[in-house]
Formats: sequence, structure tokens, C-alpha cells
Amino acid sequence: MPASPEDSAQRHRFSDTSVSLGERLHASRELSLTLARPLTDEDQTVQAMDDASPTKWHLAHTTWFYEAFVLRNHMPGYQPFSDRFEYCFNSYYETQGPRHPRAHRGLLTRPSAEEVRRYRSHVDEALMGLMSDEGSLAPEVKELIELGINHEQQHQELLLTDILSLFAAQPLRPAYQPLTLVTEANSLASETRWISFDGGIKEVGHDGQSFSYDNELPRHDELIRPFKLAHRCVSNSEWLEFIEDGGYVNPLLWLADGWGAVKSNGWQAPGYWEETADGWRQMTLHGLVPLNPAAPVSHVSYYEADAFARWAGKRLPSEFEWERAAQTTDAANNPANTLGSGTLRPCPASADAPVDRVQQMMGDVWEWTGSAYLPYPGYRPPPGAVGEYNGKFMCSQHVLRGASCVTPDGHSRITYRNFFYPHQRWQFMGLRLAEDA
Amino acid sequence: MPASPEDSAQRHRFSDTSVSLGERLHASRELSLTLARPLTDEDQTVQAMDDASPTKWHLAHTTWFYEAFVLRNHMPGYQPFSDRFEYCFNSYYETQGPRHPRAHRGLLTRPSAEEVRRYRSHVDEALMGLMSDEGSLAPEVKELIELGINHEQQHQELLLTDILSLFAAQPLRPAYQPLTLVTEANSLASETRWISFDGGIKEVGHDGQSFSYDNELPRHDELIRPFKLAHRCVSNSEWLEFIEDGGYVNPLLWLADGWGAVKSNGWQAPGYWEETADGWRQMTLHGLVPLNPAAPVSHVSYYEADAFARWAGKRLPSEFEWERAAQTTDAANNPANTLGSGTLRPCPASADAPVDRVQQMMGDVWEWTGSAYLPYPGYRPPPGAVGEYNGKFMCSQHVLRGASCVTPDGHSRITYRNFFYPHQRWQFMGLRLAEDA
Amino acid sequence: MPASPEDSAQRHRFSDTSVSLGERLHASRELSLTLARPLTDEDQTVQAMDDASPTKWHLAHTTWFYEAFVLRNHMPGYQPFSDRFEYCFNSYYETQGPRHPRAHRGLLTRPSAEEVRRYRSHVDEALMGLMSDEGSLAPEVKELIELGINHEQQHQELLLTDILSLFAAQPLRPAYQPLTLVTEANSLASETRWISFDGGIKEVGHDGQSFSYDNELPRHDELIRPFKLAHRCVSNSEWLEFIEDGGYVNPLLWLADGWGAVKSNGWQAPGYWEETADGWRQMTLHGLVPLNPAAPVSHVSYYEADAFARWAGKRLPSEFEWERAAQTTDAANNPANTLGSGTLRPCPASADAPVDRVQQMMGDVWEWTGSAYLPYPGYRPPPGAVGEYNGKFMCSQHVLRGASCVTPDGHSRITYRNFFYPHQRWQFMGLRLAEDA
Amino acid sequence: MPASPEDSAQRHRFSDTSVSLGERLHASRELSLTLARPLTDEDQTVQAMDDASPTKWHLAHTTWFYEAFVLRNHMPGYQPFSDRFEYCFNSYYETQGPRHPRAHRGLLTRPSAEEVRRYRSHVDEALMGLMSDEGSLAPEVKELIELGINHEQQHQELLLTDILSLFAAQPLRPAYQPLTLVTEANSLASETRWISFDGGIKEVGHDGQSFSYDNELPRHDELIRPFKLAHRCVSNSEWLEFIEDGGYVNPLLWLADGWGAVKSNGWQAPGYWEETADGWRQMTLHGLVPLNPAAPVSHVSYYEADAFARWAGKRLPSEFEWERAAQTTDAANNPANTLGSGTLRPCPASADAPVDRVQQMMGDVWEWTGSAYLPYPGYRPPPGAVGEYNGKFMCSQHVLRGASCVTPDGHSRITYRNFFYPHQRWQFMGLRLAEDA
Ligand SMILES: [Fe+3]
Ligand SMILES: [Fe+3]
Ligand SMILES: [Fe+3]
Ligand SMILES: [Fe+3]
Repeated sequence: MPASPEDSAQRHRFSDTSVSLGERLHASRELSLTLARPLTDEDQTVQAMDDASPTKWHLAHTTWFYEAFVLRNHMPGYQPFSDRFEYCFNSYYETQGPRHPRAHRGLLTRPSAEEVRRYRSHVDEALMGLMSDEGSLAPEVKELIELGINHEQQHQELLLTDILSLFAAQPLRPAYQPLTLVTEANSLASETRWISFDGGIKEVGHDGQSFSYDNELPRHDELIRPFKLAHRCVSNSEWLEFIEDGGYVNPLLWLADGWGAVKSNGWQAPGYWEETADGWRQMTLHGLVPLNPAAPVSHVSYYEADAFARWAGKRLPSEFEWERAAQTTDAANNPANTLGSGTLRPCPASADAPVDRVQQMMGDVWEWTGSAYLPYPGYRPPPGAVGEYNGKFMCSQHVLRGASCVTPDGHSRITYRNFFYPHQRWQFMGLRLAEDA
Repeated sequence: MPASPEDSAQRHRFSDTSVSLGERLHASRELSLTLARPLTDEDQTVQAMDDASPTKWHLAHTTWFYEAFVLRNHMPGYQPFSDRFEYCFNSYYETQGPRHPRAHRGLLTRPSAEEVRRYRSHVDEALMGLMSDEGSLAPEVKELIELGINHEQQHQELLLTDILSLFAAQPLRPAYQPLTLVTEANSLASETRWISFDGGIKEVGHDGQSFSYDNELPRHDELIRPFKLAHRCVSNSEWLEFIEDGGYVNPLLWLADGWGAVKSNGWQAPGYWEETADGWRQMTLHGLVPLNPAAPVSHVSYYEADAFARWAGKRLPSEFEWERAAQTTDAANNPANTLGSGTLRPCPASADAPVDRVQQMMGDVWEWTGSAYLPYPGYRPPPGAVGEYNGKFMCSQHVLRGASCVTPDGHSRITYRNFFYPHQRWQFMGLRLAEDA
Repeated sequence: MPASPEDSAQRHRFSDTSVSLGERLHASRELSLTLARPLTDEDQTVQAMDDASPTKWHLAHTTWFYEAFVLRNHMPGYQPFSDRFEYCFNSYYETQGPRHPRAHRGLLTRPSAEEVRRYRSHVDEALMGLMSDEGSLAPEVKELIELGINHEQQHQELLLTDILSLFAAQPLRPAYQPLTLVTEANSLASETRWISFDGGIKEVGHDGQSFSYDNELPRHDELIRPFKLAHRCVSNSEWLEFIEDGGYVNPLLWLADGWGAVKSNGWQAPGYWEETADGWRQMTLHGLVPLNPAAPVSHVSYYEADAFARWAGKRLPSEFEWERAAQTTDAANNPANTLGSGTLRPCPASADAPVDRVQQMMGDVWEWTGSAYLPYPGYRPPPGAVGEYNGKFMCSQHVLRGASCVTPDGHSRITYRNFFYPHQRWQFMGLRLAEDA
Repeated sequence: MPASPEDSAQRHRFSDTSVSLGERLHASRELSLTLARPLTDEDQTVQAMDDASPTKWHLAHTTWFYEAFVLRNHMPGYQPFSDRFEYCFNSYYETQGPRHPRAHRGLLTRPSAEEVRRYRSHVDEALMGLMSDEGSLAPEVKELIELGINHEQQHQELLLTDILSLFAAQPLRPAYQPLTLVTEANSLASETRWISFDGGIKEVGHDGQSFSYDNELPRHDELIRPFKLAHRCVSNSEWLEFIEDGGYVNPLLWLADGWGAVKSNGWQAPGYWEETADGWRQMTLHGLVPLNPAAPVSHVSYYEADAFARWAGKRLPSEFEWERAAQTTDAANNPANTLGSGTLRPCPASADAPVDRVQQMMGDVWEWTGSAYLPYPGYRPPPGAVGEYNGKFMCSQHVLRGASCVTPDGHSRITYRNFFYPHQRWQFMGLRLAEDA
């Protein structure tokens, strides 16, 4: 668990202890601005690659989301801030009409970051008006606002991972937040312990009693076989062993597509690793810093996670094994290294945790599972435009479970299904090993 | 069931009624030559796209397979035909060393088709020598020969689908086999009937008592929910309704990646369909012929199959639902439109079959399922080079079940897992709809 | 000639009437900042395409040029502002070591625009110190400073054309400078008059008595045949006739490569033209405005200029014909629509100019010639790093002559050789027709 | 001069001593078949890259040329062989309608090579009928036939260079014609001698009194400065010195585009050179053979030729300098290593030639000049479809002069202008150095 001195202050700055929907809405709107504050308007304008978006675009798109789905439909007399912003800031909603191409989001020097902040104020004011009589709001409006909060939380995580990709692509390797003091031990991670879980027909998925994304529904039975799970994530030092053992030069360890990605991308280490005369460095939100051997490895693609597991003689867990383990170990109540901790980086597993418990389940790094991202049995996308939110991406991607060091507090659930393509690695993505019991 | 006049003769020509391993080996070796016979040496040399291979390459590669895995290791004193052919005709076995790039297989005008036929003779002679005392062969050699037969059968199907892609890419649109007489009714397909299946924990996968590929193992339990399956495949006339209803212009019907594929490839119909002043034509192994409305639609990608199912308000079956249906309906014993029937094209479902039975399960077209191609629980690739046969492709592809009109007789099983990327459509690929019970 | 009300003020703001080298240096350094002033720091950070550079990069690169070639070598004790800026802001000088890739210049959110301005101040201070005793400067230092001024002038033009490309790529189509009042007549351009010139052996190229680029040297004889030149540039209204006559759909008018460019780029009009319900609009530094039929056509590639000339039954002049015409008509002393005029756009030719004189030679638009950009006989690149300035680009490009509406005053000469690839059209590029006498 | 034993026999086989137009037509038609004879039908079907065409396509296209431009228009009652061949075998004539894409010529397994030979017979028969009363043929028909002969000669050269590209791309590195005996000395080439030429106004270009291509017209004056020309082409041994001196790793020697080509293509030596444990080998029409140090270097791009000249402190000649030298030294009457010599490879310059004469001007390798390929003053493309023959390529290419070891006898002229893009190198292309006098 991260225990660095800046924690308490950071927890205060990035975390959210609000209760009512209106308070939570307000807090989440504030958090986006807080996250953007260390960045110049220039930093907020640029995207380093097609997958990433500019900070300013995240700030505007999360705002447009409320305008398009809440205010236009449910607030009589609402005046949109600008009739051009729908085109600029719609991400992928075909129902909402044409939109600026994703790969060109970084060209939008206009509207300015300052105007985007005014746009946020304009929409926030309307939202606060709407929320002023929270009790009388129609349930579907509340649900859309709940969705809006969760949507913005997702973009808060992306804002940080996208800024990391931008800063890593620049010669000056800037830091998002300078590292004032590092107190965590730089020793190796604790020996891996294997925690056993029984099999059988188990219920997984969200019960629908509170907010979840549609892709976590419906709760349903899965047949699980007995399995074991490593008590912590794979560490940087273990990844170094993989590299030194020829992990990146032996095609027999890799999926065919994975080996193709190794060759075409020239991968020789996880993302953001740089080998220097003084050893390995890693580009982080704190700038370029020495690699911490005990911390979880991060910025590895599915291909790499799969190859590592094969090299280790293990495998990745399925998403249902992961969820089952999380259910039985009360993972959601563990202290977690998420955004609120303020570390902004994966941290070593605690050495003094109970020996029969899995750790690091709900923070540090998202964990690749062996499960393809597909609809649950009986899945139905919600009606209307938000039906495009999740369902249309259910192909060719893999599920990641847990949360990361930059996942906003309150955004994680043990039923949460994150998903990325197997070649992507700019998120805080790592892995935990499994084996048959 | 196809009942055209050429059937009985063709069944004779393409089918295989041998019994012993040696006889079956010999028959499968002969079948490849038979399939190549209508082609000129020029036809056998070219590949129309990276995914496809030249006929000559298929003939040589299936021969190299025996040389590399059987003769070199298990036949003392065997003299390889050429020390350069390993480089030319290894497909993707990293253990076997470097190889000619896949996209350049069509450049190999040397060795000539004639020399490839001599290569086949050379290897066949050695194989027949080896088989002359079949009883004394070590079990693992017999298994490798069984694998070799099955391997060659797969390439026989590819040979025909690759030739179709080549002929379709040429201005003259040649026919592999002229259509002498069409007797099948050109009426619509029979009304779809929905066959119900119960749920529960069911055993799927191969039992390992006879030959199967490693990816069908191990036999294991799956939890299946009650479901219904259409009694036949989706037909061309139904696909025309989809087109006419704007199927290819409405993004809301599509997966995001699928819509991207529609736009970037300009898809407006299944593969090999051509709209002419006289209506739709389809490029087939019989040349460019009028579309048969009653026949199963073929040459559709996973993206298209998925969009069609959404448009129809149904879904694709999972691979286990498909297998379960096949188990309970004795699908494997149905008369099947596979290579031995000689039709070389998908044919309409029989109008006078039992009304409570699924049809067309084991022929006509491979059927896309909603299941990602992933390892079964407990899957282990076999030791040695053949461990690369299936396992390393278990990512980003989807499973197809059944068989097609060009699948060699004896090559299909209800546990068989075919797999392709969701954008691919040059195989005889179609779909069958499912729904929750 | 442009005679709009803003002219006199603008001429003051953008033009340069300094005399001494130091004064001219100071004025040119100021002009860059003046040109950047209407832009936000965000605008200054982004590049819309690989060919273009961000404003901030132009500001820094022109500063680095002095640091690398003047201050480091010729000012004892000079302290570079940052040891990382050589990597960031070297454009293409191989002698100066590795550099940030051109296509990624738009990723440099750091250093900030503000820091780049401090960088400029730092270098300007050093330069002013160096110039304080101008009389004692070594001739080669003076020459390098002269080169630096001219280099910065080139980048001032690029700064404006690159900003136009950025603003045109944005949904909001911002204006660099709003158009307060348009007074120019929107009638057609004057009838084209053909001015005759005699042939013979003529001297062309710079005489080396004052500053020129190396590519204008040496002055040498060229054999010129009698020719005629249009008195003005081709106008927008003439280009509309070309479009309406099928100019963009008739392959017989085009060079083979040109026709390929039309098809692959989907060209149907010059760059920045947009057809709307209300007729043609053109994206300009004043934003999206109605097309002025009388103004010279601009933003056409060499391919388009060549096709237009073929359609018109004429041809493009050679660069020597152009220069000869300029020599004999005192073109350099004509009033010119260059940057100092403040119009920031090509303007119609004056209706009341002498009838036997060519007009618009030294402003409005650069004029494509039929001459390939190749070294003059006896050309030698200068010694040292600045030898890379021009010589290494002498292949596959075409020469443009004259100047444009955004060429800094004092930067044009009748011997000046501008050059671009035949497909490029983001500069203010047009054409003037010629024919054999 | 090549003096190997096979010469006389080969000269007989490949050369043409016919006199009348009909005889020359017949001989040129025969020569194409002779050149194709060592190739299998498979070899004749494939293209190794987009720039190259299959042998079969060359055979058919040169036949279509007569059908499209002579027989259809000038032979009453001519029955075209097939109405699909226009589409298949039109190369780039927009006037003749749509055509099969260049990059897909290698997909045409139909029509077969055998049918293409029948196509040739059909057209030849018609042509011979037309020629039977040669005296009464209209002059424009004779001109078209003359053009057809020259057109076919160009394709004969391409046939051989395209086959070389195909054979070099195959693992087996076949030989077009095995090398029976090599008698040429493997010593170094003779010391370079510099031949001086005076300057002045000189006439260049074809006089129009006999056949030439339109791009050699009109004959006109050029102003030439005194210059010197190397008496022979640059040799392989000299190129090795360039390599060993870091020619391919020093960017300062290269044009910017050239250096880009070096990096993106990974060039480290001329085309078809392969470094082996036993020294440099070169893929040739005789297969992979040891590099002959004395022979002219071949398969170098313009970029490489230009870099070599810069390294050597010399330059490339202009096309007019080359032509002037050829005029004054009677180059056309020198014995020449062209196709008729049967060597099929560049050969060392003769050691016992007159010391004041340039050698190797009309054979061995085409020689890059520093001249861009542009129209001569007063150039007019011919009327009709053949106006597309040359004119539309006059952009971005460079002129090569002379002839190569595979140029058909009778096809070379000192006014001949060959042209290729600066990155191309699959032809027999080399260089000769020049310098100012
Ligand atoms: Fe979003
Ligand atoms: Fe295979
Ligand atoms: Fe510069
Ligand atoms: Fe041709």
C-alpha cells in the first residue's frame, strides 16, 4: 500500500466523499478541473496518438455529454453554449450526427482551453439548476446524471494516461506532478503466494440494485473450475527476469499476432521503459524516474501479459475467476491505490497483509484477463443514444479487471469490465497470474 | 440437399471411402492432385491477396509437412527432395526456422508446378514405404500421419477458396468447374423454424478417443442456457431484404469495428456479389452466375453476420449452443453438402426434412458463432513443433462451426472449431440465427 | 494593387524601413513576434500536417539558427539558453546532429510559447550585444546575420501559410485577422494582355554584389527564345471556367502523376475552396469568405497549374523567361502586394496600369514555372553547415518565381528561386500563362 | 566491348538485320517470342512489384497496341481477338477507356500464356496481311507501325528487367540464361580518362527526318558550356570504394530525398548486390554470380548516382552535354553491348580503344543525367491516342541517355531520352561522371 507522505494531502485533493447525487456531480465536475490544473493550455490542446485525446477535449466532451443527453432533453429552455460544439465534442455517438475525426482532436486550438472552461461553467450552472430540486427529478434523469458522473470518471483516468503518452513523446519528458519524496522501499516484491478458490456454479455480474454499466449486466451463473490466483500482481523485477531470459526474442512464447506486434513495433520492454547507461528508467506522471523493481509492472499489452504467463508456466485468470476471487476476499474493501491516494503510480504490495488474501485487486494496475470482451448472456444495450456506450465495442478486445492508480475513487467495482485491444498498452495495465487448482 | 445430376459422379471423384490409415493417406494425397487438375500451372502459381496462397504452394506445403514432421524424424535414410524447400514451404512454424514471407508466396514461379508434382511423388513414395508395414509403426508416427491427412484436408478447402479469390479478382472471371446443369429450385428458402434446446451443464469438446485437433480438447462441462436455433442458415433472399432495408448504411446495426470495415472496404453486399443490369450475380467456382435466393448466404464477415442478427432481432449462437444442438440432433449423420457432393456451392435446405430437426449443420457454409476463439479450460498445446498448429492463434478471432460445401468428406466433426478474424470473408462463411428460449 | 483602407496602417505594422544590419536584424526579430501576436499560445503549438510547423516552432527555430551558426561560433562566452533546444529546434541540418522528427513538431507543448519568447529575448540580447560594435564584425559573421534575417523572413511567410492550414483544418474556421472592410471591386479581372519579349543569350541569376541565396548563383547566360507572357496572373473566375468545363474530370488535361493526385486526394477545386449553398467560399487568413472572382487563383499545385495551362492552350513560363520579363519591366519597382501591404490575401490586378507592362510579378501569389529546381551551371553550395540550406533539395521540385501576399517586404528579388513539390499547394501559389512568340 | 565466345551466336539470335518495314515488323514480333522462350508459362505470369509487368502481359500489351491503334482503325473488316483484352492489356491510355490496374497485372492467370501466343498469331496474321502491299499503305499507318515496332522494343527491354526483378525476389534465384563461360578479365577497369568538349550554341534533338519519339523533338539550340566527360562509366570497383568510404552512411553526400530513400529502403549497395561470406554477389540474368569489379555499376538510382558524383568531387552530365559528346565522337557507330551482343550484362570497357574517345555510350547501362525530364522548347504531343505516349510523364523524372545491355539493337539513338523516377533502380542504370572544363 502506498504510504508516501504526500498521500493524505492528495487523498484530500483527488478523492470524493460526497453523498447526494448533486454533491457527487459537483465533486466530479470539480475533479476534472483539478486534474487539468497542473497543465498549461498548450498541454491541454495536443494528442500524441490517435488513441489519445487532448485534455481540453476530455473537459469539453464530458460536458457535451450532459448537454446532449440531459440538458437538451430534460431541461426546458436550456440554451446550448454553441451550436458547433456537438460536431467538435461528440465522440462516437452515431445517433448524435457527424463529428470531428478522432485523429484530429489535437488540431482544435479553437475553442480555446479558456472557452472550454467557460463551456463547463455554463453547463455546470444549468446542471446545478436542474439539481436544485433533486427530489423532483425523474428517475431516468437521475440515471443519466449518474451515468454522466461515471462517464466523466472514465475520462478523468484517460486524461491522465493520455497526458502521460503526450509527455513521453516529447524530448523534454515533462512531469505532470514532480515527485517530491520517495519513501517506498526499493527492494524486491514479496514472494508470490497462491490463493486457492473452489469451483462450481457461481453468480457473477452486477445485481442491478445500484449503478453499473450495462455491460456488467445481467447477473448470471457461470461455471467456474477450482483455481489459484497469485496474491499480487507481477512486478517489475519479475518482468526484468523475463526480458533477461529472452522473453522478447523467443517467438515460441508468443501468440502469432503478439509476435507480429513485437516485430512491427520493435517492443523490447513495457511501454515507457527506457534503458540508460544508469539502468532502466520509466517515464511516469512524475517524469523519467528509476524503475522500482517491487512495483507492479505496467503498460504491457495483452500480448505481453500472455507471453509472460506462458514463460512463467502459468496463465491469465478468466474475468469470472477474477470476480469470484474478489467476491470471496472482500477485495473492494481493501485499502486501494487509486487516484485518491495521490500516488499517480503503481506501488508495491504491502508486506504485512494477511497471507491468505489477494492484494492489489482494486488499484495500482488494471489486470488483463484471458476473457474476450463479449456480451453477458441476455445482455441488452439500454434504449436511446446511450445504447452505443458499451455494446458496439464487444469484439476483438479483452477484459481487464480491477482498477488502476489513476482510477477515480468511487469508480471501481468488482463487477467492472474494462476492455482494450490486445496491442494497446498506454493505460496502467498489468497482470496477475493464475493456475488450475 | 443438393440433388443435381452431377452429384453422384462428383461424389465419386472427390470423396473418400478408404479405411486403413495408409489407404486414407493415399486417398488424401490423390485428392489434392485431383483438385488441382482443372487448373493450369499458371493458375496454380498466383495468390490474389496476402491471406490466400497459390495452389502450388498448398500442394508443396502439405508435402513439406510430412517431410518436416514425419520423414526427417522417423524414416531413417530419408533424402529430402531439396534443401531449399524448407525455406519455401514452411508456413508459420518458428521451430522450423526462417521462411518465405506469406505475402510473397505468389512470386514463386520456381519451383515449377511440375517440379512440385515431382516433389509430391518423391515424398509419397517415401510415405508409402513407411506405411508398407503399417502395423509396426510407432503410435506417435501414426498420429503425425493422421495429423498430416487432416492438415492436407484443411488445405484442400483453402485451395478452393483461394482459387475462388483469384478467379474473382480477374477480369475474365474464369470458372473452376463449368456449371453444366442447374436443377435446384430457384424459389425462396423454406420458412425458418425455431428448434428449442434445454439448458444445464453439458459436456462439450472432443473425447480424445479418436483423432481431433488439440483445440477441441479437453472435453469439459459448459453451462448452457435454454435456447432456440433456426432450422436452417440465413438465405440469400433474406440477405437481400437486409440490404434493401438499409443494412449497409445504418451504423446503429453494427459493431464499431464492423462499421469501420464497411466504410473502409466499401462493403455493400457479401463477398463475390456483383450487381448488374440483370440483377445480382455471384462469383462462384462455376464462374459468375445468378444469385440463388434460396441458398445460404455465404462470404459474409463476422461483422456482417452480427449486424444481420441485430437487424433480425436475433443473435448468433455460442459455439457451445451450436455443439449442443448438433449433439442432440445427430447432425453428423445428416446427408451433408460437403466436398464429396461435388456441388462446390452452398445449396438450399431440403424442403422435406423432419420439421423438428436442424438442417445444413455439417456442410454448405461454416457458421459464425458469437464465441471468441480461446483455449478450452485445461487446454495444453501438444509438445514439439506441432504445438504451433493451433494454439498460437487463440486471440482476436471468432469460432465458426459446421463445415462447408468445400470441406473434404471425413474432415468434419461436431466438435470442430474453425476460426477466422472478424473481417475475413473469403471462405464459405454464413450464419444461422439463435435466440434465448 | 490593393488599396483597401487598412493598407497604410498595416504597411506600417508589418513592413520594415530599417537601414543598418543591426536595425534590420532587430526589425526582423520583432516582426516574427508581431505576426504571432494574434495567435493564442494554443494556436502556436499545433501543426495540421507534416509539411507545416507550429508557430512556436518557427519562433524557436529561427532563434536556434542564430545560436547554432552565429553565437556559438562567433561570440565568446555565449551561454546557450538550453542544451535541449538544439535537438528540439534544428530543422534538417545533419551537421548539427540528431533532431526531433518533423512530423512530431506539433507535440512540443514544452517548452511553452512563453518560454520560447524568453528564448528569443535571450538570443536577441546576445545578438544586440554582438551588433553593438557592428563595424568591427568579421564579414562572415555579417553574412551569417544577413542569412539569418532572410531565413527568418522565409519562416515568417511559412508561419502564416502554416496557420492558414491549421485554421482551415478546424471546424470553427477561425480568422487570423478579421476582415473589417472589403473595398476591392468584386468584378472580373481585366482582360489578359500578352506582353512580348525577345530571345537571345541573356544573363540570369544574381550578380553576387549583395545578398542572395546560393541557389541564385552564379549569374550565367541562358539561351531564351522569343515568348509572350500574360500581363497578370490567372484569376479565380478563370479557374471557375476551368472547373465548369470539366477540368478536374478530364484525364487528358493532366500529367499522369497529376491525374493520380486528383484521384487520390479527391481534388475538385483549389485548396481552401469550399462549395456552399451560397456559392464558393474560400478559407483565408480572414476566415471563410466569398471567393473574389477577380483575384489571382491561389493554392493550386503544379499539377493543377500545368493542367490549366494545357486547357487554356498555353503553357507555364520557364523560370528564365519569367526572370527576363522581370528584368525588362522593372518588376521589382512596381508597387507590390506583399506582407507589408497588410492585405494578407491575393488582390486583383490594377485596372489602370500601363498596358505594356506585366503586373503582379512581385507579390500576390508565387508563380509556378515549368522549370525543375536544379543547380545553376557552376553552382557550389557554401562551405559549412549552411551548405545544407538549399542544395540538398535540388530534385523533384519545381521553381516558383515572384513573391506572395505574405512574403515579408525586402525578401523578394527577381532572381529569387522558390521551390516546392508538384503536389504541394498550401502556400500562396498561383500561375501566369506564357506562350511562344 | 564484350568479346565472349557466345557473342556471335547470340548476336544472331537477338539481333535484327532486316530492311523493309514489314521485315522489321516481323523480326520485332519474333524477337519478343524469342525472349520469352527460356521462361515457363508460370514465369511469364507473375510480377514482383508494381513497377514491373509479367512477361505475358508485355507480350499481349504490345499486341494490343497494334490492334488498338492500327488494325481497328486502318484495316477494314478486322475482327478483334477478344472484346475483353482491351480492358486487360491497355496500359495507360485514357482515350482507350478503363483498364486493369497496373499493380494487379500479375493476377491474370487467364488468358493463359498459350492463349496470348494465339492472340499474337492472330494479330500478326492481320498485320502481315496489311503489310503485304506495303507500298500502298498510308503514311500515317506506316508511322504507327514504326511506332509499334519501337514500342515493342521498349517492352522487350522491360521484359528482361522485369524478369530479373522477379527472379531476384525468389528464394531459388533462378537464371534466365545460364552463364556457360566467362572470359572477360576480372581485373579492374581502365583508369578514367577525361575527354574535353567545347561550349557554344549547339543543336540537339532529333531532326525529324526518320523515326524518333515525340519527346526528342523539335531539334533546337542549346547553350552548352565547355565540359569534360569520363571516357567510361563508373565501375563496380569504384562503387565498392564509395561503399567502403561510408557512402551509404554519410548524409552529407546525399540529396535530402535521397537520404530519405536510403533510410526507408535500407539501401547499403546497388540493387541486386548481395554480400556473402565469399564476397559480393550480384543477381543477374545469369543467376547469382560474383561481382565483376571492372564492369560498369548498374541498378543504381538517381539518388545514388548523384551521391557518388558528389563523393567523387564531380557531377553528372546534363542530357545535352551527353548528346553533344555523342555527336562529336560518333558514339552511335561504336560497337555496342546491347541486346544483340547476347551478353545480357554490362561489360568492362575495352582496354584498347582510342584514348581520346568516350566509350560505352550506346550500351551496357543507361546513364543518369542531371537533367529533369521536361518538354523541349516547342514540344507538341502528337494528335490522337498516341499523344499520351510520352508527354504526360514529363514531371519529377530524370533523363537517362545511351542504351543498356538489354536494349534491342536498332532501338538506340544519340537523341534518345529515357526517363525514370529518381528512386527507381531496377533497370540497367549506371552513370558516367562529368566536370566543368
Ligand atoms: Fe466519452
Ligand atoms: Fe498448413
Ligand atoms: Fe529553417
Ligand atoms: Fe506500352
